[in-house]
Amino acid sequence: MKAWGGRFKGKTEPLMERFSASIGFDWALYEYDIEGSKAHAEMLHKIGILDEKEREIIINALEEVKREIQEGEFVFSNALEDIHMHIEARLIDKAGEIGKKLHTGRSRNDQVALDMRMYLKKELGEIRDLLRNVLHSFITRAEKEKETIMPGYTHMQRAQITTFAHHLLAYYQMLKRDLERLIQIWKTVDVLPLGSGAIAGSTIPLDREFVRERLNFSSISENSMDTIADRDFVLESIYSIAMIMIHLSRLAEDLIIFSTDEFAFVSLPDELCTGSSLMPHKKNPDSLELIRGKTSRVIGDLFSIFSLLKGLPLTYNRDLQEDKEPLFHAISTVKDVLSIVELCIKGMSVNREKMKEAVYESFMPAVEMAEYLTLKGIPFRQAHVIVGKLVRDCEDKGKQLRNLKLEDLRTYSEAFDKDIIAHIDPLTILRNRKTMGAASFEEVERQIVAERHYLNS
Amino acid sequence: MKAWGGRFKGKTEPLMERFSASIGFDWALYEYDIEGSKAHAEMLHKIGILDEKEREIIINALEEVKREIQEGEFVFSNALEDIHMHIEARLIDKAGEIGKKLHTGRSRNDQVALDMRMYLKKELGEIRDLLRNVLHSFITRAEKEKETIMPGYTHMQRAQITTFAHHLLAYYQMLKRDLERLIQIWKTVDVLPLGSGAIAGSTIPLDREFVRERLNFSSISENSMDTIADRDFVLESIYSIAMIMIHLSRLAEDLIIFSTDEFAFVSLPDELCTGSSLMPHKKNPDSLELIRGKTSRVIGDLFSIFSLLKGLPLTYNRDLQEDKEPLFHAISTVKDVLSIVELCIKGMSVNREKMKEAVYESFMPAVEMAEYLTLKGIPFRQAHVIVGKLVRDCEDKGKQLRNLKLEDLRTYSEAFDKDIIAHIDPLTILRNRKTMGAASFEEVERQIVAERHYLNS
Amino acid sequence: MKAWGGRFKGKTEPLMERFSASIGFDWALYEYDIEGSKAHAEMLHKIGILDEKEREIIINALEEVKREIQEGEFVFSNALEDIHMHIEARLIDKAGEIGKKLHTGRSRNDQVALDMRMYLKKELGEIRDLLRNVLHSFITRAEKEKETIMPGYTHMQRAQITTFAHHLLAYYQMLKRDLERLIQIWKTVDVLPLGSGAIAGSTIPLDREFVRERLNFSSISENSMDTIADRDFVLESIYSIAMIMIHLSRLAEDLIIFSTDEFAFVSLPDELCTGSSLMPHKKNPDSLELIRGKTSRVIGDLFSIFSLLKGLPLTYNRDLQEDKEPLFHAISTVKDVLSIVELCIKGMSVNREKMKEAVYESFMPAVEMAEYLTLKGIPFRQAHVIVGKLVRDCEDKGKQLRNLKLEDLRTYSEAFDKDIIAHIDPLTILRNRKTMGAASFEEVERQIVAERHYLNS
Amino acid sequence: MKAWGGRFKGKTEPLMERFSASIGFDWALYEYDIEGSKAHAEMLHKIGILDEKEREIIINALEEVKREIQEGEFVFSNALEDIHMHIEARLIDKAGEIGKKLHTGRSRNDQVALDMRMYLKKELGEIRDLLRNVLHSFITRAEKEKETIMPGYTHMQRAQITTFAHHLLAYYQMLKRDLERLIQIWKTVDVLPLGSGAIAGSTIPLDREFVRERLNFSSISENSMDTIADRDFVLESIYSIAMIMIHLSRLAEDLIIFSTDEFAFVSLPDELCTGSSLMPHKKNPDSLELIRGKTSRVIGDLFSIFSLLKGLPLTYNRDLQEDKEPLFHAISTVKDVLSIVELCIKGMSVNREKMKEAVYESFMPAVEMAEYLTLKGIPFRQAHVIVGKLVRDCEDKGKQLRNLKLEDLRTYSEAFDKDIIAHIDPLTILRNRKTMGAASFEEVERQIVAERHYLNS
Repeated sequence: MKAWGGRFKGKTEPLMERFSASIGFDWALYEYDIEGSKAHAEMLHKIGILDEKEREIIINALEEVKREIQEGEFVFSNALEDIHMHIEARLIDKAGEIGKKLHTGRSRNDQVALDMRMYLKKELGEIRDLLRNVLHSFITRAEKEKETIMPGYTHMQRAQITTFAHHLLAYYQMLKRDLERLIQIWKTVDVLPLGSGAIAGSTIPLDREFVRERLNFSSISENSMDTIADRDFVLESIYSIAMIMIHLSRLAEDLIIFSTDEFAFVSLPDELCTGSSLMPHKKNPDSLELIRGKTSRVIGDLFSIFSLLKGLPLTYNRDLQEDKEPLFHAISTVKDVLSIVELCIKGMSVNREKMKEAVYESFMPAVEMAEYLTLKGIPFRQAHVIVGKLVRDCEDKGKQLRNLKLEDLRTYSEAFDKDIIAHIDPLTILRNRKTMGAASFEEVERQIVAERHYLNS
Repeated sequence: MKAWGGRFKGKTEPLMERFSASIGFDWALYEYDIEGSKAHAEMLHKIGILDEKEREIIINALEEVKREIQEGEFVFSNALEDIHMHIEARLIDKAGEIGKKLHTGRSRNDQVALDMRMYLKKELGEIRDLLRNVLHSFITRAEKEKETIMPGYTHMQRAQITTFAHHLLAYYQMLKRDLERLIQIWKTVDVLPLGSGAIAGSTIPLDREFVRERLNFSSISENSMDTIADRDFVLESIYSIAMIMIHLSRLAEDLIIFSTDEFAFVSLPDELCTGSSLMPHKKNPDSLELIRGKTSRVIGDLFSIFSLLKGLPLTYNRDLQEDKEPLFHAISTVKDVLSIVELCIKGMSVNREKMKEAVYESFMPAVEMAEYLTLKGIPFRQAHVIVGKLVRDCEDKGKQLRNLKLEDLRTYSEAFDKDIIAHIDPLTILRNRKTMGAASFEEVERQIVAERHYLNS
Repeated sequence: MKAWGGRFKGKTEPLMERFSASIGFDWALYEYDIEGSKAHAEMLHKIGILDEKEREIIINALEEVKREIQEGEFVFSNALEDIHMHIEARLIDKAGEIGKKLHTGRSRNDQVALDMRMYLKKELGEIRDLLRNVLHSFITRAEKEKETIMPGYTHMQRAQITTFAHHLLAYYQMLKRDLERLIQIWKTVDVLPLGSGAIAGSTIPLDREFVRERLNFSSISENSMDTIADRDFVLESIYSIAMIMIHLSRLAEDLIIFSTDEFAFVSLPDELCTGSSLMPHKKNPDSLELIRGKTSRVIGDLFSIFSLLKGLPLTYNRDLQEDKEPLFHAISTVKDVLSIVELCIKGMSVNREKMKEAVYESFMPAVEMAEYLTLKGIPFRQAHVIVGKLVRDCEDKGKQLRNLKLEDLRTYSEAFDKDIIAHIDPLTILRNRKTMGAASFEEVERQIVAERHYLNS
Repeated sequence: MKAWGGRFKGKTEPLMERFSASIGFDWALYEYDIEGSKAHAEMLHKIGILDEKEREIIINALEEVKREIQEGEFVFSNALEDIHMHIEARLIDKAGEIGKKLHTGRSRNDQVALDMRMYLKKELGEIRDLLRNVLHSFITRAEKEKETIMPGYTHMQRAQITTFAHHLLAYYQMLKRDLERLIQIWKTVDVLPLGSGAIAGSTIPLDREFVRERLNFSSISENSMDTIADRDFVLESIYSIAMIMIHLSRLAEDLIIFSTDEFAFVSLPDELCTGSSLMPHKKNPDSLELIRGKTSRVIGDLFSIFSLLKGLPLTYNRDLQEDKEPLFHAISTVKDVLSIVELCIKGMSVNREKMKEAVYESFMPAVEMAEYLTLKGIPFRQAHVIVGKLVRDCEDKGKQLRNLKLEDLRTYSEAFDKDIIAHIDPLTILRNRKTMGAASFEEVERQIVAERHYLNS
C-alpha cells in the first residue's frame, strides 16, 4: 500500500504508476535525502519525538540504506513513486514501527525542496570550480598569444586590428561575469526549506534553527507557502547555466569559423575532433559544434521551466515534478562543456602566420588613417569620407593599403605626411592605442596581470 | 581504431568520447539501422558490389546482431560513438573483410536520416492510433453526457448554458485537427534519404528506387545537400506533438478546476490520483497536473530544435545530433499522455447535480433574455443595457433570475411578455438554439453522429 | 458608457483602459471587421431582423466608417477598447437606433475570430506569392551557376565537391516544403467562425451558410465552444512563418560566411549592405544578419503563443488578446525578409574563381578515391583507411592531392591504376555521379527542369 | 549620403532602408544619446580635440536637437537608419563642419551600448520603485487579512488551513526576491562602455574616466571587444522582468480562480474588470487575465534574445539590433503590470465568510489530527493511515469532520481523547502552529513587522 493509501479504495493504475513516478530520475538525490532525513531525525530527538534509542536505530538504518544504494543493492520500483518514499519504505523495512516516526512534521513538499537545494549547493559549487579552471586556461593562453596579431571582426568582416590574446580576454570577461552571477545565485539557493510541512508548518514544535545549523544553511525560509510553491532557485540555477552556455556557444562559433580551411587560424587537437565514416580526409571540430548544439538544449530546459511556472496557482502542484530533468540535464551538460572548453583552449594550435597575413592584406588600418587625419585637425566625418574613397579606389584597382605611397595618399588629402606610413603599421597601431580596455599590447598586459590577481585572490 | 581513424594521429580524449557519443540514446534506432542496412546490402548485391555469398553473409550477420541487441547480449561503448558504428563494428567482427563492404556509397549522414525517418513513421503511426482511441472515448463520453447541463465559461466566469457533451466535443474538434495534421506530417516524413551519401551522392551507381521500394517509402529525396542538412521532419513531428499537448493541457486545466471542492463537477477515479505523504485527507488529480507540466517540457523540446537550427550553415553539423533526445522525449511523453487521457475520459465520474445547480443559480439566461427583447424589435444594444441593469439590481438585492416574476421584468421593459419565463428556462434554451455548432441538444446529437461516422470511416 | 456598461457601477480605471485596450494594434483588422459586419447585416436582413431600409442604412454607414478610417479621419480612443467597439460605436453615431441592431446574435468572441481568419487568408496568400518569387529567383540563379564548382561543407569543413547551383537548390527544396505547408495551413484557416456567439450559438436563427458563402469561406466551424477557444490557426500560421525564417536564417549564415574576406565566395550588392560610422573601409552584409536576428524574434513570437495557450481553460480568456502582436510581427517580418532574400539571390555577385580554387586545393576527391578502390574490389572500410593515411601524409608533407603521381599513389595501394588521375578530377567527379539528387551536372539540370515545371504549373 | 557612404557606389535599396532602419524604435533612446554625446564632447574638449568654442557650439546644438525632439519638431527618416545618425546629422545641420568632429574616437557600437545602459539604469530604477509600491500594498492588505482564515491549496485541493494574509505574504516573498535581484542586476548594467570604439579602442587618447564620472557610472568596461559584443545586460534585465512576471502570473491565476462564482473568495473592483458585448451579466477579471497573457509575451522576449545570441561570433553583428524591441516591450509591460497589481491588491474585496465556510466544511484538520496522534506516541505513518480511513468513511457517509464525536473518533484509535475536539478547531490550529514561517497568527504578525521594517529601511 502507498504511504498515503489510507484514504484510497482503488489501486493505482499501473500506467499511472509509471507515468507519475519520478524515481527514474530523482534517485540522483538519494544522498541529500538521507542527509536531510538524518538531520530531521536528530531534531525529532532533540524535541522529544524520538528517544535516544529510536534516534540511533533510524540513523543507522538510514546509513545502511545509503550503503545499499551506493553499492547497487537497492531495488527501485515505480510503485514507490519517488526517492523519498523509497528511502522511507526501506527504513521501515529495517527499523519497523520506529521507522514510521521519521516523517513526523515533514512533507514530501518541503523534503524535495530541501534535497534540491542541497544538491544545487553541491553542483553549483562544482560548476564554479570548473569555471575557475576555464578562466585560468584563458589567462594562460592569452599570455602565450600576447603578440599574436589578428583581425578583429564585426559583421564577420575584418574591422580593426587586434591580438588573439585580446580576443580571448573578451571571453574571459564574459565568463567572469558568469562566475560572479553563480556566486550570487548560490546564495539564493542556500536557504533551508524544511519545516514548512505540506504548506503551513506544523503544530509540532520543530526546531528549524537546529536543522539549519546541522545542514549548514545560511538562513531559514520565511513563509511556508512560498517555500513550497517556490522554484525560483531552479530557474535561477538553469539561467546561470544558460548564460555560461550562451557565451561558450559564441566561442564555439568563433573557433569553428577559425578552423575552416579558408580561415585556418586555429586547429583543434585530434583528440577533440572526429572524422567521417565516408570521407577519409575529414577532421571535424565536433566538440565545438556539440557545445553550440547543447546550448540550444539548455535554453530549451530554461524555457520548459518558465512555461511550467507561468500561471501555476499556489502552492505545490504536481507539474513541479517536471523541474528535475531539465535541471539535471543543464547541470551535467555545463559540467562536461566546461571541461571540454578547458581542453580546447589549452590544446588548440594557433596559426600565427595566417592571422598575421590576414592583418597585412586587409584595409583595417583605415580607422587609424582617419584618426590620423583627425589629429591633424580634419573633422572626423570628413576624414571618414576621404579614407572611404581611398579604400574604394584601392579595391577597384586591386591595390592594398600597405602598397600605397605617400604621394598616392596625398592625392586624397594634403594632411597626409610622411609619418602616416609608420602610423598605420599594425604593430604601431597596437602600440599606440592607449584607452582603457583597448586592443593594445599594453592594455592586454594590464588585463592579464589584473585578472591573474583576481583569480588567485 | 575508429572507422574514420586513418587520417588521425592522436587518440580521442576519453572525456571527448563520452561527450560526443550518442550511443546512450540512439541505440533506440537499432532496428531501423539494421533494416536499412539490410536493404542497402541487397541493393549493393543488385548493382554488383556484393556477390550472392557476400550478401548472404552480411544479411545473416546483421540478423544475428539484431538478436544480440534484443536479447541484451550486445555490449555498448562510448568509444564506438553511435548505433551505426556499433552495428557495423559487430558486423565486421562476424563477417570479417566482407563486412567492410557494407558502408559502400553510404555515409552516417544519410544513414541517420534514414533511421530517424523509419523510426518516425512507426512512432507517428502509433500516436495516430492512440489519438483515434482518445477521440472515440470523447464521443462515447459525450453520448453519455448529452443531457448534462452545465455553465459554459469565458474568463472563467459563467457565460452561457451548455452541456458537458458540447464541452467535451470542443476538445474532440481540437484533437481531430491534430489527427489530420499528424497524417499530413507523416507524409513529409515518408521520403527516402539514403543514397545522398555524405552530401553529394556517389559515383557508385546506387539504385535508390530499389531501396525505396524495399523500405516502403513513398518517394525519394530530390537534393542530396538538402537531404543531409534537413531536420524539418523532426521539427514537424515535435510540433505536431506539441499541438496535441497544448490541447490536452487545456483539458487538464479544465478538469483540475472542475475537480476542486469548490466546483466539484468531476472526480477522477482513485487509480489516476495520488495522495499526500503528510495530509491524510488529500486526493490529488496528479495525472492531470503532470499532463499540464509535461506540456511545458514538450514546448521546451520544440524550442530546443528551433534554436538549434537557427543560423546553422549547410549541411551536416554535429549540432544536429542534439535533435534526438528532445524528439524521443516528446514521443514517449505524448504516447503516455494519450493513454492517460483516455483513462481519464472513460473513468471520471461526473456530478451532474452540481453542474445543474450551477446553471440554475446563475445569471446566464441573461443572453437569451436580451435575444428575446431583440426578437420583439428592441435593438440589441438597448436590450443588452436593459438586461445588464436588471442583473445589477438582482445582485444588489441578492435575487436570482429564476425568482423574478413577470411584473418585476416589466419594470425594465414593456416588451417582456409571459412567454419570457419559459424562454429563459435552461432546457428551453438548449432546445431553442438552432445555429450550426451551437450548444443545443440537437446540434450535439448531430456532432456525435457525424463524428462517429468520421471515426469509423 | 461602454457597450457592456449596464451591469457596472464603477468607471473603468484610466490605466486599466490603456492596459486592456487593443485598439493600438487591432485597428489593422478594420477592413475585415467591416466586411464581416456587412455580411452579418445582410444575413440579419435575410432572416428578418433587419428590414430593407435598416439593412441599407447599416451597410452605407459601414462603408462610410471604412472611408473615414482609410482617409485618416477616424478618431481612435482607448476608452473604446478595440476595433469592433470603435466601428460599432461610429456606426451608431451615424445610423442611430438602427445601428444598435447590428450586434444581434454576434459576440466580439466570434467576431474577432472572423476578422483574424479573414486577415490571415489575405496575408498568407501574399506570403505564398512572395515565396513563389523567391523560388523563381533560386531557379534562375541556379541556372546561371550550373557550372560553378565549389566545396560542399559538413562541419564547416570542405567535404565533397559540389556546384553552387546544387547548393542553392538545397534551399529551394526547403522553401518548396514551406510553400506546400503554407497551402495546407491556409486551408485550416479557411473556416467560418461567425455564428458561434459568445460560446454557445444563438436562439436567433442565424444563417451561417449564407455568411459563409458571402465571405467566401470553404466551411463552417463545427463546435461553438471550440470555435471561441481556438487559436490553432494563429499558432499554425506563426509556425509556418517560423519554418521559412529558420531556412532563411541558414541561408543568411551561409552567405555571411561566404562573404567574409577569407572565403570571398560571394558579395552582396552595395544596396543591400551598410557601412560603419567609424571604420571607413567596412561593407557589411547587414541584410543577412538582420534575417538571422529576426528569425530569433519570430521564434520568440511562436513561443509566446505556445506559452500563452498552455493550460488555458475553455473558452475565451482575455489572455488571447495577446495573440495579435506576435502574429502581426511575424507576418510583417517574413514579408520583408522574403523580398530582401529575392534581392540578395538576384543581386549577389559570385566569385567563381575563388570557389574553384578552394576545390582544387582541397582533399575532397578523397571520397571518390576511396570509391575507386571499392570499385576495384577493396572493401570500403579498408579503402577508407588507405586514403585516410594518404591524406595524413600529404598534410604532413604539405602536398596537395592533385600533385600526387601514380607511383606515389601505388605505394598506398596496388589497386590504383592510371585512370585514377582522371577519376579524381573535380569535373569528372561532377560528371560521374549518377545517383538521384546527387551533386552532378546532370542531376542539377534535372532538378532545374523539374522545379521550373513545378513552379509554372 | 550616408555617414559611412565614402566607400560605397550603389545607393541603398529603399526596401533595405526600411528593413534595416531602427529609428522606428530606437528614437526612444534620444535623451541618453544626447547626454552621452555631450559628455563625449566635453571629454574631446578636455583632451584638446575640440577647442572651447567648438565645445560650446556642439553642446548648444545638441541641446537644441533635444528640444526639437521633445517638442515634436524633429523629422525622422529611415534613410538615416538610427537615432545616432539622426542626431549627428541634425547636429551637423546646425553646427556645420564643427559638428563633424563629434564622432571622433567613437563608434555607433560603443555609443548604442552606452545609450542602452543609461536607459536601463533609469528604467530598472523605476521598476524597482513600482515593485516597492507593490510590496507595500501586500503588507497593507496582509495587515487587514490577518484573521481571514481560508484553505491553503496544493494540487488545487484544500490542503491545510491558512490565512489570506499568509497567502499574500507568500507573494510578498517572491517579489522581495525580485527586488533584490533587480538591485544586483542594476549593478551589472552600471558599467561605462564608451571608449571601446568599434571594437578596439582608439589611438586618440580618450579619457574614459572623465566620461565615467560625468555620466555617473560606477566602473569602466575592461575589454573593448567584450564591450561591443556584450548584451548580457539586456538578457539580465529581461530575465529579471520575466521573473517578476512569472510571479505575478501565478498571483493572477490564484485571483482569477478565487473570483469564479464557484470559489467567490475575492472580487475585483468594477474599474479593473470589463464586460461582454453579448452577455449582459458578465463581469470579467480581464486585468488579471492580461497579466497572465502578457507574461507569455515577456518569456517570448527573453527567448528571442537567448536565441539571438546563441552561436553569434564576436563582436558586433547586426543581429544585435533586434535586442531593442523585446527589451522595450518587456519594460513597458512590467511597469503597467506592476501598477495594475497594486490597484488589484488595494481594491479587491474579500469575501471572508466564503473563505471561512470553505475551511469549516473541509477535511483539512486531518493533518493536525494525525499530528495529535503522533504527539500521543503513535508513529506518524500509522497515524496517517488511521486518519486517512476516517476521512474515507466520512466521505462515504457524507459526514463532515466537525460533526464527529469523540466516540466516533475512538473507534479509529484509542489515543483520541476529549482534547481532540478543541485541537482540530481551525482557530486553535492557527494559534498552535509555532514553526518559523508557519501559517499561524503569530508568525504572520512576525512577518508583517519584519517586512514593514525591511521596506522602510
